[in-house]
Amino acid sequence: MRGARRPDTLFWVDPSRVTGSRLLLDADESRHLLRVFRAEPGLSFDATDGAGTLYHCRLVEDHHGEARAEIVAREAGAGELPGSIHVLVGLPDMHAAEAIVEHAVPLGVASIVFAACRRSGREVLSDTRLDRLRRIAVAGVKQSLRSNLPVIGAVASLGTALASGKPGLRLLADPEGGAISSLLGEGQTVLKKASQPSITLAIGPPGAFDDGEAAELRQAGFLPISLGPNRLTTETASIALLAVVRNLLLESNLPPI
Amino acid sequence: MRGARRPDTLFWVDPSRVTGSRLLLDADESRHLLRVFRAEPGLSFDATDGAGTLYHCRLVEDHHGEARAEIVAREAGAGELPGSIHVLVGLPDMHAAEAIVEHAVPLGVASIVFAACRRSGREVLSDTRLDRLRRIAVAGVKQSLRSNLPVIGAVASLGTALASGKPGLRLLADPEGGAISSLLGEGQTVLKKASQPSITLAIGPPGAFDDGEAAELRQAGFLPISLGPNRLTTETASIALLAVVRNLLLESNLPPI
Repeated sequence: MRGARRPDTLFWVDPSRVTGSRLLLDADESRHLLRVFRAEPGLSFDATDGAGTLYHCRLVEDHHGEARAEIVAREAGAGELPGSIHVLVGLPDMHAAEAIVEHAVPLGVASIVFAACRRSGREVLSDTRLDRLRRIAVAGVKQSLRSNLPVIGAVASLGTALASGKPGLRLLADPEGGAISSLLGEGQTVLKKASQPSITLAIGPPGAFDDGEAAELRQAGFLPISLGPNRLTTETASIALLAVVRNLLLESNLPPI
Repeated sequence: MRGARRPDTLFWVDPSRVTGSRLLLDADESRHLLRVFRAEPGLSFDATDGAGTLYHCRLVEDHHGEARAEIVAREAGAGELPGSIHVLVGLPDMHAAEAIVEHAVPLGVASIVFAACRRSGREVLSDTRLDRLRRIAVAGVKQSLRSNLPVIGAVASLGTALASGKPGLRLLADPEGGAISSLLGEGQTVLKKASQPSITLAIGPPGAFDDGEAAELRQAGFLPISLGPNRLTTETASIALLAVVRNLLLESNLPPI
């Protein structure tokens, strides 16, 4: 295998292209494996289907540019958190939305829903922009070695988002809120009771949720949580709150130093 | 005061332009206050000197385009954390460096030093680029209502950065590390013993610190901390670790829910 090194990246495979122990990469991913990594039959690589499974594979053949591989082992839930964190964010500008997806996907988010809020000052995300965010999400899944592709959604109002909200612990980023640590007892109970705990984080658009939206969130059981003394942008607040809550989910699962 | 509304942003004032109870904005900031906000004498606004003081001001006059104001009150340490968090990061590309400054400054970082590491694959940051990062830092201080401008530095090697390192708790982002919660006891003791606790976070460049650099960090007392099961980019790891540690610093100071 002159020139071939074991790829340090995950490849993407659509679940429909996995049959028994055979796996076929699509044109882009085949080109990446066969040309960039100069893979030859026998080379080991890993692939994710974004639907919860990571495949350890061995390349069988380059079939007219299509990489055909044999599945050596499957790993369910590889690179996933011991629970689900959903992010519900008031739609900011596209640069900020991209930053949220870029950082939140590697941090293990289960879904990100962008809701056009009254202070968003913009319409619901277009399909073109949603596609762009989903491509960033796929890149993030591969880079961060996840096995689940998060759902990236767009809705026309906060109410629509709340109508299909997830059960579980609900937290609202709110400068007037309390400390996350004060939730630790309650939060950890919630986390430990459920085998797959679910937490939804709500972060306002630039300019914050308006009073009506804040009331909708309170009625939906969102607990106000302060991120400290600084005014944060929608994107910084989203990433920071996710990082803190992710750590809560993880900390009981990591070995002590 | 037709057309004038109280500005929702902080203005920037160089400490040298504060004399007694008088404060003079520079050309850019004066234009912003007088033109964008159409401020007229009597309007209240806030300014930060980036050196630890926030000024509550009242505009006295528009002197040929220079905003001259009276200081009504001073607030020391407004928008600052109850301690210092320093970030030492292996130099990534400029896009990533900008993302770190953009998110870390509002999250209260005291300093960010970019060290050209052996796997950085690039030279020490140029003065031009450093200036650009410092402008992003100033914008972040204003947006997040801080009173201290973080130090943004560039050094040619990790060793140089460590030679001028800060005392206090030292944490290294390391996939093989332990849980941050296991440090909570020790960490909080450190935090509570010192009236102004200091924590330094080290995050590797893309491709991670090499073995020699990792040994230097261990010798300097950095404790390996895992951020979970995902491979994170330098920028995502920097922001996530800062968010988690910031929350540790804050949580004893926020009121319970």
